[in-house]
Amino acid sequence: MRFTISRWKFNIFLILLCLGIIFYYKSSYPSCHVLSNLPVEGRLQGYLDHPVLDKNGTLYTYSRADSIIFIGGMPRSGTTLARAILDAHNDVRCGEETRVVPRILQMRSHWAKSEKESMRLKEAGVHKEVLDSSIAAFIIEVIAKHGEPAKRLCNKDPFTMKSALYLSELFPNGRFIFMVRDGRATVHSIISRKVTITGFDLKSYESCMKKWNQAIETMYNECKAVGSTRCMMVYYEQLVLHPKDTMKQVLKFLDLPWDEAVLHHEELINRPGGISLSKVERSSDQVIKPINLEALTKWVGKIPQDVVDKMEELAPMLKKLGYDPNGNPPNYGDPDAFVQQNTLEIKKQEHVWVNKTKVLLTEKLVDLKKVN
Amino acid sequence: MRFTISRWKFNIFLILLCLGIIFYYKSSYPSCHVLSNLPVEGRLQGYLDHPVLDKNGTLYTYSRADSIIFIGGMPRSGTTLARAILDAHNDVRCGEETRVVPRILQMRSHWAKSEKESMRLKEAGVHKEVLDSSIAAFIIEVIAKHGEPAKRLCNKDPFTMKSALYLSELFPNGRFIFMVRDGRATVHSIISRKVTITGFDLKSYESCMKKWNQAIETMYNECKAVGSTRCMMVYYEQLVLHPKDTMKQVLKFLDLPWDEAVLHHEELINRPGGISLSKVERSSDQVIKPINLEALTKWVGKIPQDVVDKMEELAPMLKKLGYDPNGNPPNYGDPDAFVQQNTLEIKKQEHVWVNKTKVLLTEKLVDLKKVN
Repeated sequence: MRFTISRWKFNIFLILLCLGIIFYYKSSYPSCHVLSNLPVEGRLQGYLDHPVLDKNGTLYTYSRADSIIFIGGMPRSGTTLARAILDAHNDVRCGEETRVVPRILQMRSHWAKSEKESMRLKEAGVHKEVLDSSIAAFIIEVIAKHGEPAKRLCNKDPFTMKSALYLSELFPNGRFIFMVRDGRATVHSIISRKVTITGFDLKSYESCMKKWNQAIETMYNECKAVGSTRCMMVYYEQLVLHPKDTMKQVLKFLDLPWDEAVLHHEELINRPGGISLSKVERSSDQVIKPINLEALTKWVGKIPQDVVDKMEELAPMLKKLGYDPNGNPPNYGDPDAFVQQNTLEIKKQEHVWVNKTKVLLTEKLVDLKKVN
Repeated sequence: MRFTISRWKFNIFLILLCLGIIFYYKSSYPSCHVLSNLPVEGRLQGYLDHPVLDKNGTLYTYSRADSIIFIGGMPRSGTTLARAILDAHNDVRCGEETRVVPRILQMRSHWAKSEKESMRLKEAGVHKEVLDSSIAAFIIEVIAKHGEPAKRLCNKDPFTMKSALYLSELFPNGRFIFMVRDGRATVHSIISRKVTITGFDLKSYESCMKKWNQAIETMYNECKAVGSTRCMMVYYEQLVLHPKDTMKQVLKFLDLPWDEAVLHHEELINRPGGISLSKVERSSDQVIKPINLEALTKWVGKIPQDVVDKMEELAPMLKKLGYDPNGNPPNYGDPDAFVQQNTLEIKKQEHVWVNKTKVLLTEKLVDLKKVN
C-alpha cells in the first residue's frame, strides 16, 4: 500500500471518530457503573444495590458484600467513644445510634426461637434466605442513609452485639468491634446516669451486676462464635489509657490506613464529614471532650460493701474478661502522657466544658423546635 | 484525494474494527439493562431494584414504583378466598400470609405514635424518608421472594389494612382490596374455629363483636383515607353470591384483563403457577373448594339472644357497612346459578371433600417433617 499524508489524515480522522463513539457508549451507561458494584448473580441472591448521593453529588453504592463495621457492647462501655473516634477517620462514617437496627434483629430472633413461628413462616414461603435478604435490605438502607455516605460504613447500636453471629451471616465481609469495660464502672454509670435498660433495676447494684454479667456473657459468646478474624474485643480502659496503640490495632484489624485524626476526634464534633452527635444520646456530653481518664475509676467507693464483697460470684465475667474482681480499683495500667495531659487540661478548664455542653444542649433545644 | 481499492479495504477494516469495539461496550453492561426498570433519580430516592429469577430463568425486577396489590380486612372475612381467586389470575401472584409484613408495619406505627421515639430517631438522622425506604425494601423483598415472581405482585396479610394509608405512601402505585363481611359471621367463625387474635376473648360473643367493630372501623377509615381510586371495598357476601360480576369490577379496579380462571380457582390449588396454600393457615381447607355459599349464614342461631338483641349498639359498623343489625340473617341477595350448583355438589360429595382435606393435611405432615 502506498500512503500519502492526506490519506493518513483521513484514517486518523476515522480512528478519532470511532474513539468518540466508543467513549459516548462508555459514558451512556453511568447508572451501570455507579449503581452496581456487584455481578448479576450476586444481586439475584439478595445482594441488592443501595445507591446514595453525598452532598457533592458523588454517588456511593452499598450492598451486603461491603465490609460494614458494627460496634457493639453493653451501653456505657465506650461504644460512643469508639464510634466517635472511627467517625474521625477520613474513610469511615458511623453516626448516631439508629435504634431500629437492633429492634428488627430482636424481632427476627423471636421468630427464629419459636419453632411454631418458624414452621409457619416456612409454610408461607418465607424461608431463611428470603427473611435474610429482607432484613439485610432494611439494615443497609438505615445505615447508609441516616448519615453522609463514606468509603466504609459503620454502625453503632450497642445491642447488635447480641446478634453478631447472625449479622456476620447477613454481611459476610462485615467486621465487629466488641467494646468491653469493667462491669463495675458500666453499672455505676448506668445507675448514676439513670440509663433505662429493660431488665435493669436502677435501685440495685447487685441485680445490675448480675444483669451485666448475663448480657456481656451473651455478647462474649457471640463475638467468639464470629471468630477473631472478624470480631475484635476492644477494652475501654486500654482505649483511653493507650489510644494510639489501641487504634493502630483496631485500624489494622479493619484494614483501614492510619489517620492521625483518630487521636483528636474532639476537633471534628459536628463538623462536615466529621462526627455527628445526637443531642439526646447519653454520651454526647462526654465524647465532645478529648480522650481522657475522667471516667476510669469514678465507680470506686460508690458500690455497697456487701455487693463489693461478693463481686466475684455476682459477676464471674469480670475475671473471665481479665478484671480483678477484688481490686477496687484494679490496676488498669499507666496512661500515655498525652491522655494524662488531656485529663489535666479538662480539669483546669472545667467551666469551658460546662459551657460547651450547654451550647450542645441549647443547640439541641433549637433543633428539637425545628424537628417537632 | 486519490483512492485505490486497497485503501478502501483498509478503511472498511478500520470501521468494522470500531463497530466491533462499540458493540463490545454496548453488550458489556447487561446487568444494568435487565436489573433496572427505574431512572437513576428514582432509585436514589429509595426506589431500589429488587431482581428475582423465576424457575425458567426469566428475570423480574420489582420496585416501590410497582402497582402491588394489598388484600386486607378482618381475619375470617374472605381475605384468603380473595387472594386465592386473584392467584388464579394468570398475571397475579399473592401467595400465603407472610406474617412479617404486618409486624414491621406495627413496629413502625409504634415509633410514629411515640413523640419521644420519633424525636430520638430524627436526632439520629433516621428521618421519615430513611425509615420509609428501609421498610419498603424489607416489604418488597418478602413479597417478591416468598413465592414465584409474576407480572403483578399481590400480598394478603389481613392486618395490613390497618396501615393502608402508610402503605399507600410507601407504594404510590399500590392498590388495596378491603374485604368486608358481616361481623356476626366473622365473629362466629373466629369463635367456632378458635382463631386466636390478640384482644379477642373467644369465650364472649359480646366482647368479640365490640372488638370487631373497633378493628373494622380503623380499617374502614384507612381505606377511606387512601381513597376510592386506590382502595376498593369488596363484600364477601357479594363475592360468593355473584363471583363473576364482583371479580369483573375487582379486575377492572386493578387494571387487570378478565381471566376466566378466577371463576374456577379450585382447579389451580397447588398447581405450578397456580395457588400455593399454607398447610397451617386456617382457611386452606375451605378455599380448596369451588366458590360456594356454605359459610354465608352458619352464624344464624349461634349468637346468644342477649347479644343479638343489642347488636345495633354493640357493633354500629354493621349498619354503616350496610348490614341490617336486626336481620338474622339479613337478606344478602340471591346467588348466581353456578354458585348454587357448586354448593349443592359440595353437599352431595361431602366425603370427597373430607378426603381432599385429609390429603392436604397429610401433605402438610410430610412437608413439616421435611421442614423440621
